[in-house]
Amino acid sequence: MPIKLLVTNDDGIYADGIQLLSKVLFESGRFSLQIAAPDHERSAVGHAITMHRPLRVEQVNFLHNPKLTGWSVNGTPSDCVKLAVEALLEERHDLVISGINRGSNLGTDVLYSGTVSAAVEGVILGLPAVAVSLTGGGQSEDFVRAAEFVCQLIPPLFEAGLPEGTLLNINVPPGCTALKGARITRLGTRRYRNSFDRRTDPRGLVYYWLAGELVEGEDEADSDVRAIKEGYISITPLQFNLTNDAMIPDLQKMLSRIETD
Amino acid sequence: MPIKLLVTNDDGIYADGIQLLSKVLFESGRFSLQIAAPDHERSAVGHAITMHRPLRVEQVNFLHNPKLTGWSVNGTPSDCVKLAVEALLEERHDLVISGINRGSNLGTDVLYSGTVSAAVEGVILGLPAVAVSLTGGGQSEDFVRAAEFVCQLIPPLFEAGLPEGTLLNINVPPGCTALKGARITRLGTRRYRNSFDRRTDPRGLVYYWLAGELVEGEDEADSDVRAIKEGYISITPLQFNLTNDAMIPDLQKMLSRIETD
Repeated sequence: MPIKLLVTNDDGIYADGIQLLSKVLFESGRFSLQIAAPDHERSAVGHAITMHRPLRVEQVNFLHNPKLTGWSVNGTPSDCVKLAVEALLEERHDLVISGINRGSNLGTDVLYSGTVSAAVEGVILGLPAVAVSLTGGGQSEDFVRAAEFVCQLIPPLFEAGLPEGTLLNINVPPGCTALKGARITRLGTRRYRNSFDRRTDPRGLVYYWLAGELVEGEDEADSDVRAIKEGYISITPLQFNLTNDAMIPDLQKMLSRIETD
Repeated sequence: MPIKLLVTNDDGIYADGIQLLSKVLFESGRFSLQIAAPDHERSAVGHAITMHRPLRVEQVNFLHNPKLTGWSVNGTPSDCVKLAVEALLEERHDLVISGINRGSNLGTDVLYSGTVSAAVEGVILGLPAVAVSLTGGGQSEDFVRAAEFVCQLIPPLFEAGLPEGTLLNINVPPGCTALKGARITRLGTRRYRNSFDRRTDPRGLVYYWLAGELVEGEDEADSDVRAIKEGYISITPLQFNLTNDAMIPDLQKMLSRIETD
């Protein structure tokens, strides 16, 4: 039985990343694919969903393999996963793959990432999920190598299973070919300096561009940021149980103090 | 010294929630305020940020108190916080307050919430943060009561401090007046059934509306969902350390097995 994958991304359905990933997965013969992705680039949308207008879907052909078709959706990556799982699917998917994103999704930046959010949506819907990003400029051969890595990883991963509420965030550096090059990592931190560029337009009005220079920090030895810096594939298990249990007793004490004041 | 607050929301700067919250906070005399919020409603945008077009800001007057002004930003809640902290601020803020949102932000839904994401942005920038939502329809007097609760909570909270990377997600039911009505909770789960409504437009083309009916589940006794259901204010401490540390050894084992195959 082939593993039934739902493939999505945030760069849009015509981006090389999803086109080449889908081609490699399909041609391996080990997977059946349903593809549903945004009709244009939706980077940095985070976990946005579309509530105030209807969604349209259109079936489109794939450039790199004429046997493949996908759903083009005029929504966000999270919309695509929701819609594919709850309205478009023929059979229940086994696993959601989001990517391959052009550019890294590391450390704190995952909170802004449409690629990661699509995988989170899979997890919310009860499906195991993987987000894959290619660091650097995104040459075709690097997408293909990253796709081959994913192709090799999915079957044992699916067999082993992912704990509930967990997804894998994978970043692949360009030129990385071997599984030997993979490290299991923790999410690092990325900080930016001077994040806005203040300019004046030809009519004398002020506007701001989000800019910001990455501050080289002290990366922990086991962080995703460090793994990529040192040329390794980074695999980070992420969980979305956001409650800070450790803080509950302190808050309870604070609340009782206020009440007795 | 007044506590220096940055106030934002996702319903837009003219929404009753932020206008009445700002009025109550300002008139208490205990806080100094900077207000920066989206120029129109940005619900369900999650942690989206604006990278592909410049941001404009405009100073606007506040309806409920002529002594107040705020920054209206043509961006997302996260943009507002980033911009206020890194470009518009006069002095370093002590705390970010996002709200008061019209409608609840409970359980899994916090991942989609612009209100919560603005608070997350504060945390990323190193500031303690609080997200506040009013469940139900949003009557003025209920916003005022919720604002009075926030006004009472902030000073002891600021004094006690929040652990790094943590924010408080507060939901207030309408008609709730007393601090006695507050519970410290954990994030519950909310599941939806039949999330898309498939329709045909007058030209015969299919479109989908995100709909979905909330499935009444088995709420844990200490969940935010349950607290609200039983008429209490819910205060949930949230953390954004997303690494699933418990899974790392298993992944490492899986990876070595693949490598030796």
